[in-house]
Amino acid sequence: MLYHVTMDVKIPQDLPAAERADILAREKAYSQDLQRQGKWRHIWRVAGHYANVSIFDVRDNAELHEILSALPLFPFMEIKVTPMLRHPSAIREDDS
Amino acid sequence: MLYHVTMDVKIPQDLPAAERADILAREKAYSQDLQRQGKWRHIWRVAGHYANVSIFDVRDNAELHEILSALPLFPFMEIKVTPMLRHPSAIREDDS
Amino acid sequence: MLYHVTMDVKIPQDLPAAERADILAREKAYSQDLQRQGKWRHIWRVAGHYANVSIFDVRDNAELHEILSALPLFPFMEIKVTPMLRHPSAIREDDS
Amino acid sequence: MLYHVTMDVKIPQDLPAAERADILAREKAYSQDLQRQGKWRHIWRVAGHYANVSIFDVRDNAELHEILSALPLFPFMEIKVTPMLRHPSAIREDDS
Amino acid sequence: MLYHVTMDVKIPQDLPAAERADILAREKAYSQDLQRQGKWRHIWRVAGHYANVSIFDVRDNAELHEILSALPLFPFMEIKVTPMLRHPSAIREDDS
Amino acid sequence: MLYHVTMDVKIPQDLPAAERADILAREKAYSQDLQRQGKWRHIWRVAGHYANVSIFDVRDNAELHEILSALPLFPFMEIKVTPMLRHPSAIREDDS
Amino acid sequence: MLYHVTMDVKIPQDLPAAERADILAREKAYSQDLQRQGKWRHIWRVAGHYANVSIFDVRDNAELHEILSALPLFPFMEIKVTPMLRHPSAIREDDS
Amino acid sequence: MLYHVTMDVKIPQDLPAAERADILAREKAYSQDLQRQGKWRHIWRVAGHYANVSIFDVRDNAELHEILSALPLFPFMEIKVTPMLRHPSAIREDDS
Amino acid sequence: MLYHVTMDVKIPQDLPAAERADILAREKAYSQDLQRQGKWRHIWRVAGHYANVSIFDVRDNAELHEILSALPLFPFMEIKVTPMLRHPSAIREDDS
Amino acid sequence: MLYHVTMDVKIPQDLPAAERADILAREKAYSQDLQRQGKWRHIWRVAGHYANVSIFDVRDNAELHEILSALPLFPFMEIKVTPMLRHPSAIREDDS
Repeated sequence: MLYHVTMDVKIPQDLPAAERADILAREKAYSQDLQRQGKWRHIWRVAGHYANVSIFDVRDNAELHEILSALPLFPFMEIKVTPMLRHPSAIREDDS
Repeated sequence: MLYHVTMDVKIPQDLPAAERADILAREKAYSQDLQRQGKWRHIWRVAGHYANVSIFDVRDNAELHEILSALPLFPFMEIKVTPMLRHPSAIREDDS
Repeated sequence: MLYHVTMDVKIPQDLPAAERADILAREKAYSQDLQRQGKWRHIWRVAGHYANVSIFDVRDNAELHEILSALPLFPFMEIKVTPMLRHPSAIREDDS
Repeated sequence: MLYHVTMDVKIPQDLPAAERADILAREKAYSQDLQRQGKWRHIWRVAGHYANVSIFDVRDNAELHEILSALPLFPFMEIKVTPMLRHPSAIREDDS
Repeated sequence: MLYHVTMDVKIPQDLPAAERADILAREKAYSQDLQRQGKWRHIWRVAGHYANVSIFDVRDNAELHEILSALPLFPFMEIKVTPMLRHPSAIREDDS
Repeated sequence: MLYHVTMDVKIPQDLPAAERADILAREKAYSQDLQRQGKWRHIWRVAGHYANVSIFDVRDNAELHEILSALPLFPFMEIKVTPMLRHPSAIREDDS
Repeated sequence: MLYHVTMDVKIPQDLPAAERADILAREKAYSQDLQRQGKWRHIWRVAGHYANVSIFDVRDNAELHEILSALPLFPFMEIKVTPMLRHPSAIREDDS
Repeated sequence: MLYHVTMDVKIPQDLPAAERADILAREKAYSQDLQRQGKWRHIWRVAGHYANVSIFDVRDNAELHEILSALPLFPFMEIKVTPMLRHPSAIREDDS
Repeated sequence: MLYHVTMDVKIPQDLPAAERADILAREKAYSQDLQRQGKWRHIWRVAGHYANVSIFDVRDNAELHEILSALPLFPFMEIKVTPMLRHPSAIREDDS
Repeated sequence: MLYHVTMDVKIPQDLPAAERADILAREKAYSQDLQRQGKWRHIWRVAGHYANVSIFDVRDNAELHEILSALPLFPFMEIKVTPMLRHPSAIREDDS
């Protein structure tokens, strides 16, 4: 099942550099692991912003929440979730 | 080059049914033709809304505008355009 | 799977009274049928507004969309969808 | 009498971990006690957010305020209150 | 129980003058009758606007809804409801 | 002359408890003194919020400003002022 | 007593030209008469908008409302009222 | 040339009292000097707010910016600028 | 003197096609004439929108208003005006 | 390819003066270097604000992001990006 998720990152200026680097490294590993599993299906950078637009393909609302709330950057992001489904005009097999 | 586009459809109640059906048929054909060309890369329905989220992969801003302003539903939609690019954590080849 | 849905009704003043009454009768029957099936789990009126807050329990995003877009009042409502899940502090068996 | 309440939690990053854990434990106990009394009738998690949607069934506005303002997380939440009532199409006995 | 209600009136320009006058006369009579019963406790005009701020003292959410939705101007107003209670610093007997 | 005033209180978490208690005690005394003089005519608590709705009856804009800007909580409140007047449908003598 | 008032004019496209011209002529005469009386103390056009910013000097909220609600353009304007007073740094005699 | 400027002052609670007093004294002297030159033509206090509405009469956009960005309170204010001109209905000589 | 102006065009669906074509032809001629005079210095289309961003270089606020309010599309546009000036980091001679 | 970018600068009050001066000097050099390359085509100051409006002419979304995210002030700015293209009424050669 598909969800459209936007994530805006706001890391406080006073977060120590080492802690910041650690969080970002864990975030990247976490994201790439989920991408490999096929659960984080797409991720794009928004031009000019420290933000991304992502598409998740998970079992249900609970699994989506479990994944998002475990993001290392979760305490530093504004997240917006939109449930989606196959569009009747879609022709691409994997857009559902 | 990638663009994230949301389209909210607001067709007036008093549009004659035949005209409405004609516009929708042309919209579908137009969208599917662009999907086949690879320019309208993804399209999803937003749950509970007469709306879609789409990803376009076009040459530049001008081609995006040419495509969107020629949509049969263009006069009846609120459109929001967000320029995007490959995310540094993306692993999928075709997310750029 | 649970969804929180708000529906604000805006019926145009110039809708003929008979058509209006017909839509409202079909809306009520449709809602009560889904309530009996357990898919439209709760519905409450918002005090002072022609609006409701509802909880749906359906299979997935696609079924939610199918149900909402078939509402007789769908063309006359502003709808807001929020995906939900069991709260870790909930004690009531059927809040999930 | 029914009220729809949304609670968005924003705990400051610099709250000491022990104090945070203590507040959360007291919040959970407080919520579950009120759920057992039937006053906090429903509680759901909002997917992707540190937030909940709740339904309260209390005597009046004053009791609702007394309950909400005594929440251990009250100083760290944005709260929105909407008074509700039985919907004329509701069939479930306990939706009022 | 007290509720703070704001009502913004937007009567369409094309409503026939006689119909408009009839609605306004019934609105006034309805309001004054409820004021005499003590249920519509206060009403003030907002300077520069076709709008009022009112305080209702009714049994519960359901009675408030019944009163508001029966207003002759109900289809032409934007209404906002805020539940209220006695303030701990209030000294006036009838502010609760 | 009547003014509708809403006050939302946002006291910073790091204000020392003694200073906070002192401000609140002075706020209450100040408010009750003005209520006794008839200048702060009504005050109600908003359910679920650290906020109030008040009605002031003062000589002019300048006196209203003098009163509000001298509130002990003034630096910690968002204030909204709406000038009001007698409503043509009002029957209560003291609603003007 | 001073009030800051902004007026945004939205005349419907389908208002007959003669009616429009008549309203505008009456609006101008009405405004200039109040300017001569000293009650409509200032009026400026907002660059690029069919709108004005005005300063009124009237007895009280009720007189302000009486003047604004009698504007020939009143049904076609969005009005915003802000009560004002002499600024402690003002040196000009007539800014109060 | 005329500009309508609103200034909302937000001085942080932790600014030392002496620094605060110094800034305010310099702000007042700066404002009154510009008022005497006829460049800061009007200034009014907004009732209930630490804010003002001002009218500037300066040579051009650049001079306006030079004046505003040199305000001692500039780092602590939200400023909104609206370019204005003589209204066709104005009768007062100096409203342009 | 420079102004940044955004124009969003909303032509009603029911405007007769001939009238629409005539307005658009006059709008284009009017714009190009002002561009040739150097007063309408830049104009760009916003991708995906029937809108433009323009830079005007005119004598003062009054000339800007005279130009904008005479646009054939003026009754059908939402316009936003921002006064601008040379940026201290600009190196291009004609950006002022 | 053209992009319209607005940048609002919010430097925290507690940034040490030397660090602030260093960032601003690097920002200016960085901007002027890009202006000389023709990539940062225009930059204007917004009157009364610590903000600019800029026009970028770059290869694609990715290059725009690379430039913006490397701005020394990037962590202290709110940025808004709008993709643009040649307007059909433009006559100036370099507005595309």
